[in-house]
Amino acid sequence: METKEKPNEITRRQFLTTVGKVGGSAAVFSVMGTLGLLSPETVKAADFTPPRSGDLTATNRNGKKVIILGAGIGGMTAAYELGKAGYDVTILEARERAGGRNWSVRKGTTEAEVGASKQIARFDDGMYLNAGPMRIPQFHVTMDYCREFGVEMEPFNNVNDSAYYYNENVGALSGQKIRKRAAKADMRGYVSEMMAKAVNQKALDLPITADEKIKLVNYLKAEGNLEEDLFYRGSERGGYKDEPGSRLDAGVLRDPFDMKAIINSGFGNFFSSEYSYDMQMMMFHPVGGMDMISKAFEKRVGHQIKYKAEVKEIRQSSSGVRIVYTDLQKNVDREVTGDFCICTIPLSVLKGIPADFSPNMAKAISSVGYASAGKMGLQFKRRFWEEDEQIYGGNTMTNMDITQMYYPPTKYFSKKGILLGYYVFGSNADKLGKMSYQEREKHAMMQGAKIHPQFYDEFQTSFSIDWKKIKYNLGGWVSYSGDDRKTYYPTLCKPDGRIYLAGEHISYITAWQAGAIESARSVVTDIHQRVLKD
Amino acid sequence: METKEKPNEITRRQFLTTVGKVGGSAAVFSVMGTLGLLSPETVKAADFTPPRSGDLTATNRNGKKVIILGAGIGGMTAAYELGKAGYDVTILEARERAGGRNWSVRKGTTEAEVGASKQIARFDDGMYLNAGPMRIPQFHVTMDYCREFGVEMEPFNNVNDSAYYYNENVGALSGQKIRKRAAKADMRGYVSEMMAKAVNQKALDLPITADEKIKLVNYLKAEGNLEEDLFYRGSERGGYKDEPGSRLDAGVLRDPFDMKAIINSGFGNFFSSEYSYDMQMMMFHPVGGMDMISKAFEKRVGHQIKYKAEVKEIRQSSSGVRIVYTDLQKNVDREVTGDFCICTIPLSVLKGIPADFSPNMAKAISSVGYASAGKMGLQFKRRFWEEDEQIYGGNTMTNMDITQMYYPPTKYFSKKGILLGYYVFGSNADKLGKMSYQEREKHAMMQGAKIHPQFYDEFQTSFSIDWKKIKYNLGGWVSYSGDDRKTYYPTLCKPDGRIYLAGEHISYITAWQAGAIESARSVVTDIHQRVLKD
Repeated sequence: METKEKPNEITRRQFLTTVGKVGGSAAVFSVMGTLGLLSPETVKAADFTPPRSGDLTATNRNGKKVIILGAGIGGMTAAYELGKAGYDVTILEARERAGGRNWSVRKGTTEAEVGASKQIARFDDGMYLNAGPMRIPQFHVTMDYCREFGVEMEPFNNVNDSAYYYNENVGALSGQKIRKRAAKADMRGYVSEMMAKAVNQKALDLPITADEKIKLVNYLKAEGNLEEDLFYRGSERGGYKDEPGSRLDAGVLRDPFDMKAIINSGFGNFFSSEYSYDMQMMMFHPVGGMDMISKAFEKRVGHQIKYKAEVKEIRQSSSGVRIVYTDLQKNVDREVTGDFCICTIPLSVLKGIPADFSPNMAKAISSVGYASAGKMGLQFKRRFWEEDEQIYGGNTMTNMDITQMYYPPTKYFSKKGILLGYYVFGSNADKLGKMSYQEREKHAMMQGAKIHPQFYDEFQTSFSIDWKKIKYNLGGWVSYSGDDRKTYYPTLCKPDGRIYLAGEHISYITAWQAGAIESARSVVTDIHQRVLKD
Repeated sequence: METKEKPNEITRRQFLTTVGKVGGSAAVFSVMGTLGLLSPETVKAADFTPPRSGDLTATNRNGKKVIILGAGIGGMTAAYELGKAGYDVTILEARERAGGRNWSVRKGTTEAEVGASKQIARFDDGMYLNAGPMRIPQFHVTMDYCREFGVEMEPFNNVNDSAYYYNENVGALSGQKIRKRAAKADMRGYVSEMMAKAVNQKALDLPITADEKIKLVNYLKAEGNLEEDLFYRGSERGGYKDEPGSRLDAGVLRDPFDMKAIINSGFGNFFSSEYSYDMQMMMFHPVGGMDMISKAFEKRVGHQIKYKAEVKEIRQSSSGVRIVYTDLQKNVDREVTGDFCICTIPLSVLKGIPADFSPNMAKAISSVGYASAGKMGLQFKRRFWEEDEQIYGGNTMTNMDITQMYYPPTKYFSKKGILLGYYVFGSNADKLGKMSYQEREKHAMMQGAKIHPQFYDEFQTSFSIDWKKIKYNLGGWVSYSGDDRKTYYPTLCKPDGRIYLAGEHISYITAWQAGAIESARSVVTDIHQRVLKD
């Protein structure tokens, strides 16, 4: 998600106009807003007015038919919101299932990556791997739909100081698994010590008063757990080599790492992964699998979905749209016509489909890149990370190819568990993606076992995904680089005749379900306003 | 919990002896231990060998009767573990319920604080306030019992960057509720900026190489989200004034606070509350209330508990123990005799009970202090913190009397919720404790409403606890000060004739259920070994 963008006026204006329109609830919102009771997220929610039944009159209702391409989260959001005003909606979905990248791999799930053989998931009943999205920030609009649909949520353990850092070729701490708490305590300790001494010795010419310097030093003492003389000599924050217990067992603190060792380890650069806006705690996920959200949408719009309908051509004229698709069940081509088309097909796939797009739009669609991303689920017959190492959820990070492992943030204490053996991006994703399913498993086991030797005794079965090779996706998420946001993005955001693009790629919340939802809501608003103007 | 204690040899020796004894599983443990597969916590678990059925023979079995005073977590742990070898156990419990400080206040819960009128909880069915312990670190032995008993656990949201800091009389940011993420981003940003520049300008004479300085600066850039020129100019980590959305809505970052304002705010001193060993994520609590743990123990040892049995005298001779208690049901005094007594009564209460303790023990019991602690549960008819402010669990911290508020870390999206209106210690606890229930409610509402004006519209009912005034506890937890650990503690840890003390106060895990459990296990081991020697 881009960050340091310039302020943009549209939202403010949009919001104010909307508040003007929506009346009752919005009045409340604006009052609450001025009282400061609402977060920006809540205010943004007021930014969308769902079409209402009764909006469409006999005159304008006639033939307001919308064809939606793709039954992912974006497509289903559009269908669901348009449905509230009684639009005639048809969703074409190439797969047998809805959800798109919202995909929980379960026992029996079968997938053949492009140019590869079939892979069948042999996980136990009730167990799953969230192959696509696996976590939701608490402020995303996705949470609102989960509330509206009654999808039960539980925390996603995105932070766990009991999990490990493990790096190779980083000096003294190479090849050692270190509890995150130990690396954090020592790095913060030493850095706070250096800083506190510098402030005190006036080595730093700081634009603050003597009183503020005292406050700054006190902060550094608290941040680094420094002693009175401003030295860091280890801290209970880093854990113990011998746990405190009953009676005279006061415990034995671990010895802090040497400062040079911890600086060279590179562990400190992992800390900030927990700081970014959309990775901060608390995060959530649906109980039972991320696809509980797809299923909740499907329950409401499923009757409008044509499954196994692979889009072959996207045509439009001044009077309507015509979509040619292959019915993969019967293997015959069919077509469906409508007044408007909402296309949520990823650009990586869309660029290969013959379509009546303007030259600008066609160029934009074919010019934007997609991210490499891969995941592997490893089922173990025993939750050794809980039983042997007291790690309940969270992730272990490493500079090995596997990048990061996630411990299951659900069903604690149960016998078996599916551990996310790797979640990789970029070159690591490309490297693992090139391997066969078997080679990936071997590689993930070999590297993971360096951190958890229990891998070999407890392993049962794996399933891996390389999103670049998943048909109908061909990539993890959109990846705007260089000037793409300036050159191509504005074109993608505008309707092209009667065709509107939607999906995470038409947002500044890329790679998140919230991006798909927000963009779908924008398209719904546009089409509805256009229809009401007819 | 004390930290910087000297290493202590007993544990190691204890552990090795035990490993020698326990055979099979321990053999595995030691192997795993040397392989580095086990955490110190797991190794410590191997440190306890439960008495086994068959240990007690016909000769030594006769009359191995143990009287346990108090059916809290410590007392019930002792009964449960002794029960495995078939000891004849009687637990005397003054209350109608087991659990002690493990207490979930529910609809109908009635409590009269010392010198005060009755308070009746009017919460809705199924809602609760964990008046005592409310969270469990993932590495505490308490988790092992939850696994053994099948108590379902869920995360306790001890960290939530969407919650607030709110301080008064701290300069420019006084009286403003600030999202934690904003304070963290700015404080870390400015401090990293100062530090990075100091390192680069060689203002600091650091004992590290040029290459290490580069690594240190890179760490500081990541830690503070600094720009290439090492300036901090705000960060997406701090959040937005206008959320990013779909299409051209790139969002508008919040403006960072002035450096002096954030330094003077004191918010930085709150960060480290999330760093301490036993407060780090992940933390857990039982689904449905902390008392699910009491109930699980009660299910196993409840038949041995005499409820409403208030201990009046604790007597012992060379041949046995004799406990006089008042049957509060019939209001008559009775007595029970046994071979040993395990006393888990808090020292604050025990010191007032006539007993045959040695002068040293009596002096120690009466010399140790207890902590002030208070909590208030506020039931609201709407989860405005979730609906209006996207806060799902976690706590808001303030320098007002109420100190901290906790949002319910369970049943997200449900209609109502019990918010922990305050959790106070020390002088704040004493100040609120002195008030009547009504005055406490008024005070908590008045201060809480400064952060959440919704308090007034949504409030339904409250229940408050001042642990210093709760009969049979008279304090939150033991508070060793000065030389107490040297002067009195060793005496408390030794058996006094046939009487053994247990509870969180006989541990270095004070104020935690794990302390009560570990100390009970130590007493069980001692008594069992003493019996086997007979």
